[in-house]
Amino acid sequence: MKDNNLFTLLGRDNKSAARRGRLNLPRGAAETPAFMPVGTQGALKAMTPDQMQEVGAKIVLANTYHLAWRPGEKIISKLGGLHDFSGWQGSMLTDSGGFQVFSIKHKEISEDGVTFRYESDGTAEFFSPERAIQIQEDLGADIIMAFDECIPYPATREYARQSTKRTIRWATRCLEAHKREGQNLFGIVQGSVFPELRRDCARAIGDLPFDGLAVGGVSVGEGLDLLKTVLDLTEPHLPVHHVRYLMGVGFPEDILESVERGMDIFDCVIPSRMARSGTLFTPFGKIRLTNKKYRKDAYPVDTACDCYTCSRRFSRAFLRHLILSKEVLGSTLCTIHNMRYYQKLMEDIRQAIEEGRFAEHKRETIAKLKEREH
Amino acid sequence: MKDNNLFTLLGRDNKSAARRGRLNLPRGAAETPAFMPVGTQGALKAMTPDQMQEVGAKIVLANTYHLAWRPGEKIISKLGGLHDFSGWQGSMLTDSGGFQVFSIKHKEISEDGVTFRYESDGTAEFFSPERAIQIQEDLGADIIMAFDECIPYPATREYARQSTKRTIRWATRCLEAHKREGQNLFGIVQGSVFPELRRDCARAIGDLPFDGLAVGGVSVGEGLDLLKTVLDLTEPHLPVHHVRYLMGVGFPEDILESVERGMDIFDCVIPSRMARSGTLFTPFGKIRLTNKKYRKDAYPVDTACDCYTCSRRFSRAFLRHLILSKEVLGSTLCTIHNMRYYQKLMEDIRQAIEEGRFAEHKRETIAKLKEREH
Repeated sequence: MKDNNLFTLLGRDNKSAARRGRLNLPRGAAETPAFMPVGTQGALKAMTPDQMQEVGAKIVLANTYHLAWRPGEKIISKLGGLHDFSGWQGSMLTDSGGFQVFSIKHKEISEDGVTFRYESDGTAEFFSPERAIQIQEDLGADIIMAFDECIPYPATREYARQSTKRTIRWATRCLEAHKREGQNLFGIVQGSVFPELRRDCARAIGDLPFDGLAVGGVSVGEGLDLLKTVLDLTEPHLPVHHVRYLMGVGFPEDILESVERGMDIFDCVIPSRMARSGTLFTPFGKIRLTNKKYRKDAYPVDTACDCYTCSRRFSRAFLRHLILSKEVLGSTLCTIHNMRYYQKLMEDIRQAIEEGRFAEHKRETIAKLKEREH
Repeated sequence: MKDNNLFTLLGRDNKSAARRGRLNLPRGAAETPAFMPVGTQGALKAMTPDQMQEVGAKIVLANTYHLAWRPGEKIISKLGGLHDFSGWQGSMLTDSGGFQVFSIKHKEISEDGVTFRYESDGTAEFFSPERAIQIQEDLGADIIMAFDECIPYPATREYARQSTKRTIRWATRCLEAHKREGQNLFGIVQGSVFPELRRDCARAIGDLPFDGLAVGGVSVGEGLDLLKTVLDLTEPHLPVHHVRYLMGVGFPEDILESVERGMDIFDCVIPSRMARSGTLFTPFGKIRLTNKKYRKDAYPVDTACDCYTCSRRFSRAFLRHLILSKEVLGSTLCTIHNMRYYQKLMEDIRQAIEEGRFAEHKRETIAKLKEREH
């Protein structure tokens, strides 16, 4: 099989587009399919770098938009870049800020870039392909993203067409602007839910000399059915030798469906955000700790889980108490569990692909997930 | 020297009332002078039990008032008591709820006890000596406290006299109510700032068959000078063979002054509460991370500190960023540091007493603490 330097395709499923691969990153390999926890502020949300390493995460995502505003990319650069700043010695990926910038209500979009004010304090800022690359070079992640427009859903065909064409033009400018050695730049495929736009964009971005590709403009409220459709019509046009990053996805079911459709890496705020409000993932569905039935429940979240929270046998009743009392420890213990759940989900997916039983594995895993849902 | 079963007095300072001792608790010995971190909700505030053990804490304090309301002492009892519930396998102390109940604005005090409504949701409750002991028996801490009135400051002599006499009568009722084996019950000396009340109360409580004694009604806004006065006039009347617990104290300076005045164990929310707002303790004074001067500061909080946060060399700039971003990890890393600072403070105090140089140690430590204060 054809490889690039970053990505080694180790194997492909016989019955679907699922792939088993490896990202050869400077700070260690990451086996794919992989899930990347989100550490918006360069922090790993409620977890120490050691706890994050212990759950098995290899790549953590940080947000350009938030970090450029505070503390500012120049300060992070001065302090040795994101890895030294945050103490996370695994790999890091930064998004380009496109997703956040385009969600701001008041902004001016031109061919050059986007003028906006930070929602937190009104500071004026201008993001362009060149500026997004400069910030990400200063932040120093191992993987950085092109500056694109994440098209809102729903969008008209005409808006999507114009926007997607601009995203392709901006992709070229990102490649020209990017100079930092040892940093991998990924292109992003947009096109909303329109087959010909997705196809044309996948081909155009796929033809450019990126180190990897992402499918963006998903997880914007389109739902799982439309996500599957988008992937079905995008995937065949993506070059096989590139890693495919599906941005902002998702729930365990979404990830299983997307792996089946040839996606390799994922990120999502769901496991950390839901942990902090007391929703815990298990192979038998979610546990909502705020539910009164866990008041006296002496069991750990999942007796089969090997995370710190479950191994130490913190009871559901205790975790419930911590969440209701808004104790910081509750966020930590629940986040550790959910993060471990997601890493284990990916480990099991990788093993199933290796053993040629991904289709059954997907079916069984999704069926089990629904057992306790309510 | 005379011992009781719980407390072994190992040595006394030649030039002051400072003492070196040991609490022989069922879950392990605790060397004194000792600082007990506060875990209001049975949680160790932002820290896991393992992180708490790592900083060297031996006894953690939990609050009867909060736990009786949520989740309720019966649930904690059903789940095996506070140790099993929280996962903290070191020693625990519960207060009696007196401090919280008497701070509530609308309450009715009678000889029998106090009727009040929880400030959180208005639930009606009645705390009496018997009820406070029953709750604490159910919670199952290793050390429990008598139900007393923490007299507000300032108070009239007449109010303080009546209240202190009631606290003494309630102390007897607590002793009669307490049945649980292997649980140590401490009496509390009140008396506000009035010499004859403190003296009489110390003698009366000291004569009762408690397992240890506490000095209460301090840290209520009286200030360090009055605290020192209260200790100077109370200490000579406390039986020497009992451990002395100074409730709710305090800053490092307060602890040093109180150790000199014969106090053995301490608790305070200061290190954890200040950590969460970004104030860090060092031997050279406090670091307020919100100060702009730490924006680019690449140093750890204290290069000589052996806590996780300092050993891992998280920079002041990163910690500042986490606190400003209200990231949970900021609370955790700062709390770990402050908790370790307090344990090290006590380790150094114990060593100084052992080596007969407590007076110099106190003087030097306080002088250093003022170096960087601003």
